[in-house]
Amino acid sequence: MPENRQMTIASIPAGPLQASHFALRTGPAPAPGNGQVLCRTLAITIGAGQRARLQGVSYAAAAREGEVMDGSGVARVEASNAPAYAAGDLVAGRTGWQDYAVLDAADIEPVEAGTDPALQLGGLGINGLTAYFGLLDVGAPQPGDTVVVSAAAGSVGHIAGQIAKLRGCHVIGVAGSPAKCALLTDELGFDTALSYKDPGFRGAFREATPDGVDVYFDNTGGEVLGSALRRMNVKGRIVCCGVVSQYDTANPAPAPRGIPGLLISSRVRMEGFLVFDYADRYAEARRDIREWAGDGQLKLLVSEFQGLDAAPQAFVDLLAGATTGTTVVRL
Amino acid sequence: MPENRQMTIASIPAGPLQASHFALRTGPAPAPGNGQVLCRTLAITIGAGQRARLQGVSYAAAAREGEVMDGSGVARVEASNAPAYAAGDLVAGRTGWQDYAVLDAADIEPVEAGTDPALQLGGLGINGLTAYFGLLDVGAPQPGDTVVVSAAAGSVGHIAGQIAKLRGCHVIGVAGSPAKCALLTDELGFDTALSYKDPGFRGAFREATPDGVDVYFDNTGGEVLGSALRRMNVKGRIVCCGVVSQYDTANPAPAPRGIPGLLISSRVRMEGFLVFDYADRYAEARRDIREWAGDGQLKLLVSEFQGLDAAPQAFVDLLAGATTGTTVVRL
Repeated sequence: MPENRQMTIASIPAGPLQASHFALRTGPAPAPGNGQVLCRTLAITIGAGQRARLQGVSYAAAAREGEVMDGSGVARVEASNAPAYAAGDLVAGRTGWQDYAVLDAADIEPVEAGTDPALQLGGLGINGLTAYFGLLDVGAPQPGDTVVVSAAAGSVGHIAGQIAKLRGCHVIGVAGSPAKCALLTDELGFDTALSYKDPGFRGAFREATPDGVDVYFDNTGGEVLGSALRRMNVKGRIVCCGVVSQYDTANPAPAPRGIPGLLISSRVRMEGFLVFDYADRYAEARRDIREWAGDGQLKLLVSEFQGLDAAPQAFVDLLAGATTGTTVVRL
Repeated sequence: MPENRQMTIASIPAGPLQASHFALRTGPAPAPGNGQVLCRTLAITIGAGQRARLQGVSYAAAAREGEVMDGSGVARVEASNAPAYAAGDLVAGRTGWQDYAVLDAADIEPVEAGTDPALQLGGLGINGLTAYFGLLDVGAPQPGDTVVVSAAAGSVGHIAGQIAKLRGCHVIGVAGSPAKCALLTDELGFDTALSYKDPGFRGAFREATPDGVDVYFDNTGGEVLGSALRRMNVKGRIVCCGVVSQYDTANPAPAPRGIPGLLISSRVRMEGFLVFDYADRYAEARRDIREWAGDGQLKLLVSEFQGLDAAPQAFVDLLAGATTGTTVVRL
């Protein structure tokens, strides 16, 4: 049996997440049962939303101390007791933060041979699919609409904003630093980018949206949501995708003022979604994303880290805003 | 020229509304111009939402000191310079709080002769139409759904809850006193009623919704919204109709915790609406409401006050929760 290194949750954070909230544990790799495969993890991705499970208020059951940290990864099948898979196949699934995982064949999906795990976990994975369905299905942007994306240099945001541009929208990105703002406008084609840390942010937001906001793709909640609420056009849509401003704490703040009052006065729809509800349409989305990425219309950003040991700090960096695009840890 | 008594806004309230924020003014009735009619107000209705205009954060332009208080009424045409109307006709429109108003013929609608102004202003007016379209169109309840209505003994709430019962839903009303709760269950057919002033309200809300909440018809915002958010079923709908908990102040509170996080985890749609957007479907709604009210399936509550002098105190009583159903002042 090969040795299996696992990154576990050492303690549930009471304040901001630190690398010391995780601990490495080593043991023998498990053996696959009937209908299962043994997977060797090649890469995992970390998303800000995973922080919510460590608060106990997310859609997934709250995490507990001592558990292996959950997460999506790309893996190579080492041994298979399921007819659909053979040793050497590439697969994607919830490997968790560990070298080896035993997964039910029903819970994994095949990955085309030769696909870079970073592409599979980013543009073709949860991030790209979330951006695609959240923007197009929940946000329903029309050509000429003004679309605002928060955490716009992040894993989902940078893709959502570029898809909005592809649909003929005027796109404003909100990010946390001048460097990220420059990336959005100079490299990714956003029309405008604003830093929410700028003391003049509220005024800049108003000036950047002279025609109001038709779709606000919200990855952050908090102050940016508060600013967007005040600029929503009649019948505007707020796509509730993430709440990164409130993840890295045990006590999320109240929502901004103006909910529900401003939703009524501008007849705004504010809607939460989870990408898993769109599973039967993933193929359609991946076809589009592969095509856009293939001919350079969609640029996919990746922040890479090396080794399982690096995963806790990668998560801390992500929450501190030190990464752009999809955060990938190669094992 | 007849004398016109007008109830004006003496000052914008900084805290809770008082009758002294209004002042009576007397002058000659105006004369109708071309395409206009002179109306003698018979009754006006007061809604909690009108308090928002006195905060300057509503959909209508903020009210200013010295203006006649705005509001909907039923009136008798005294003199007409418009071909569609003749002296003696009953009409409905924004008469304001005054004996006489000159209104554009395009801004009023005819009322069937003999109709009680309280029916026209309640079930067939803004309150009934708001309940009808908010519940059925925005809330989209299915038979067997659990529907919660806040301010359930109020002008819109008591109608929304009864329509939900007519659609085969399990209906829970939230109100502000044991007497109102008894009214809801004993007279109006609600399945359960809860007082939000009860110290055990949160627990009672949980117990009353063992199958979660599919539609929350929100007239209040605030604490009741906070409780409902935690009980929403996957793909539930929150109909944002009013924010009565936040009207009677110059500084509305932040929204409850859990927005947008809980909207995401349960994929909830939270949508504001204004009844005016449904103007081309009023006839359909009124047909249904007349039928339901006619055969006793829908009971329409009215709190009546006598005389223009009583209007300010009626408004204060309404905001203090001392009225039920549609508040009507007969002039």
